[in-house]
Amino acid sequence: MNFSSKLLENAVNEVSQLPGIGKRTALRLVLHLLKQPTLQTHQLATALTNLVDDIKLCKKCHNISDVEICEICANPRRNDEIICIVEDVRDVMAIENTSQFKGLYHVLGGKISPIEGIGPQNLTIDSLIDKVRKGDVKEVIFALSSTIEGDTTNFYIFKQLEKYTIKTSTIARGIAVGDELEYADEITLGRSIVNRIPFENSL
Amino acid sequence: MNFSSKLLENAVNEVSQLPGIGKRTALRLVLHLLKQPTLQTHQLATALTNLVDDIKLCKKCHNISDVEICEICANPRRNDEIICIVEDVRDVMAIENTSQFKGLYHVLGGKISPIEGIGPQNLTIDSLIDKVRKGDVKEVIFALSSTIEGDTTNFYIFKQLEKYTIKTSTIARGIAVGDELEYADEITLGRSIVNRIPFENSL
Repeated sequence: MNFSSKLLENAVNEVSQLPGIGKRTALRLVLHLLKQPTLQTHQLATALTNLVDDIKLCKKCHNISDVEICEICANPRRNDEIICIVEDVRDVMAIENTSQFKGLYHVLGGKISPIEGIGPQNLTIDSLIDKVRKGDVKEVIFALSSTIEGDTTNFYIFKQLEKYTIKTSTIARGIAVGDELEYADEITLGRSIVNRIPFENSL
Repeated sequence: MNFSSKLLENAVNEVSQLPGIGKRTALRLVLHLLKQPTLQTHQLATALTNLVDDIKLCKKCHNISDVEICEICANPRRNDEIICIVEDVRDVMAIENTSQFKGLYHVLGGKISPIEGIGPQNLTIDSLIDKVRKGDVKEVIFALSSTIEGDTTNFYIFKQLEKYTIKTSTIARGIAVGDELEYADEITLGRSIVNRIPFENSL
């Protein structure tokens, strides 16, 4: 691209570093900002700068937080004997939206993925084992994505936890509510039959 | 969405103001920035702030520029007797990429569009008429998009220029190079027959 302005070129280059945003989209976004009041761009820039400068990770669950101990961990009405292991803050948000879980979380910060160079030492697994070793935890729920990396991570953590006498469980895999059986893949359908539940529990 | 952090919520809200970016995409982008070195976000924020604070519009052609008179208008080797009317800076970039045009541009800043509340007074039409009135311009080329708004704007400007003895032309509409005839729409195909050119000119 042939830019008529260095400032424009610079802004487009920076915006196009974001994932999924190419040069053309970046140009469209930047030109949009130029048409808006300057204040909007200042607010955007300040919000991003403040975020990366001041954000903290909760010392207990490693979730993104403004304070040392996040709202969820600090809430005395939540059950600290049940820990739900998730990949990142988006999963915490998704589960919180269901209002079905009253325990605490443990945010791993990713999945074991040799292809992306992420090993167990890059995740917060040690801190999870520490928590369990201290003896307050009664149940650990695995809630990672159902992918090869997710299953590998689950299994790795499961092996580390084996020597402690705690309950481990995993979120149910099965047919999504509202889905037609004929379109379900066979692995999911197979698992949903093997792991069937008493009918009265589904009411 | 249930955010665990005000800083995160604020950043997501600001990013989701951008056109075509919803809350989920904004969250994905912001979490990506959090995983990168802080420097990247600072550079992004600075580039955007510098852009909106310091950008200028060229006094002659209204193109985006770092200086008062843009590179193209300041170039003595360009023919200032031919003016190509375009909608915005992206069109200037597109035409410059072809290396086929050696005249100057006039950036309107949009098209007449009653539905979006854009009238002739919101565009740089007066400044174009001024240029023509001064008598240096010999030809005006209309290069707006081929839409109702584009055609309306072309016609409005054409009417304003009628009293001056200058040549007016419009970029050719026709079958794109590499396109199959059978997939061309009938209006384009019809125009390409009516406005056929001597074969030797196409060589």
